[in-house]
Amino acid sequence: MATTDKGMPAVVLLSGGVDSTVLLFHVIRNLQAGPVHAVSFNYGQRHARELECAAWQAAQAGVEAHETIDMRFLGGMLKSGSALVDGGPGVPALHALEEEDRAQPPTYVPNRNLILLALASAYAEAHGVSDVYYGAQALDSYGYWDCTPAFLERVNHVLALNRKEPVSVHAPLIRMPKVETIQFGRGLGVDFGHTWTCYRGGETACGECPTCVERLRAFAEAGLEDPLPYARGLRD
Amino acid sequence: MATTDKGMPAVVLLSGGVDSTVLLFHVIRNLQAGPVHAVSFNYGQRHARELECAAWQAAQAGVEAHETIDMRFLGGMLKSGSALVDGGPGVPALHALEEEDRAQPPTYVPNRNLILLALASAYAEAHGVSDVYYGAQALDSYGYWDCTPAFLERVNHVLALNRKEPVSVHAPLIRMPKVETIQFGRGLGVDFGHTWTCYRGGETACGECPTCVERLRAFAEAGLEDPLPYARGLRD
Repeated sequence: MATTDKGMPAVVLLSGGVDSTVLLFHVIRNLQAGPVHAVSFNYGQRHARELECAAWQAAQAGVEAHETIDMRFLGGMLKSGSALVDGGPGVPALHALEEEDRAQPPTYVPNRNLILLALASAYAEAHGVSDVYYGAQALDSYGYWDCTPAFLERVNHVLALNRKEPVSVHAPLIRMPKVETIQFGRGLGVDFGHTWTCYRGGETACGECPTCVERLRAFAEAGLEDPLPYARGLRD
Repeated sequence: MATTDKGMPAVVLLSGGVDSTVLLFHVIRNLQAGPVHAVSFNYGQRHARELECAAWQAAQAGVEAHETIDMRFLGGMLKSGSALVDGGPGVPALHALEEEDRAQPPTYVPNRNLILLALASAYAEAHGVSDVYYGAQALDSYGYWDCTPAFLERVNHVLALNRKEPVSVHAPLIRMPKVETIQFGRGLGVDFGHTWTCYRGGETACGECPTCVERLRAFAEAGLEDPLPYARGLRD
């Protein structure tokens, strides 16, 4: 866990998924007594429901401010090469993924976390905030190079060069398995019925894309029922 | 100078100022035989003339593609705290600047180069390009922490973690004084009449903001006449 002075303000990257929502409640309840700014990004993700969940959770957690940054230019700039971005290729079911794709899944957005952390750190600096939190967690690091402890350390190494207002990035869940994150969030009173994980764009979570499967497995391991309805249940 | 394989494609950050324009011609003429993509950013800068110059120079240099990324949300996100962004405070004359402000000038945009390099590297990765060039040069490093060799090194340290398509950032002018950059650019045939430096929003360059003064001094030291008209000449 990050140790931070009580009473300091913080910026939390809030996607509206399980991890960033648990992180938001953790920061507000356990780490910071100061005002918390939630920052979300609209990068044209297929699952706009995520952003609705982010707004709901930000209000529920009682943040000082919730800023959603419009980055829909990203899809065009990246040639919609990612399955995560609307207009990109479809999101495959986990059981259809090749081993190679699991190393860097088709939902990977090039450089996503460096872009988001650079922007969130700029937002923090402009608002006089020194601590930025993001919800990288253990499982993500199998698939995404920008969710690893090494990534976090090196980003902080860059930001430490700032001469006037250095900002630090923290990822307190980065070594916590998803099942523990869910149990931890439950203890914090998080309502998981207002978190969104599915990478496809449906009205109901699909239950078979890689993140749905990961989420359903983690709830099952935690011995808890996922309050979200699914189009189809967990298969293995 | 960076050493790069001939024939490889490259991405060049092109602002339309002196340094990035010289860099663009240097990359095309000396470093890369492959296609070059110029990437510019519209972050609501006061000096939109810069972007017109970027487009002119990109066409002149014969780039493969010129992408301008619309980042005008940045001003609102940063509370327009920078004098560089339209709606921010005025740009003071250099002679009115305090010593403290010279260490980190009022035209500083929080985290600007990390944001731009993160986006340019994502663009590069999505287009299968491994080399990104940006025009940080020696004088910038007095005022901006994100124009220093240490910054460049640490950003590359982050990007080296990419498992699939690592991208490297190069800044071949980073140790070159501006006067040499201008002489170097002249040798490359750069038309400085289509570069823009002034940080104020006027029709004619003001001649007294910090970057105008720096530019005018460098041209004078280089023994060359700046082809741009100025509202007022160099004072010191």
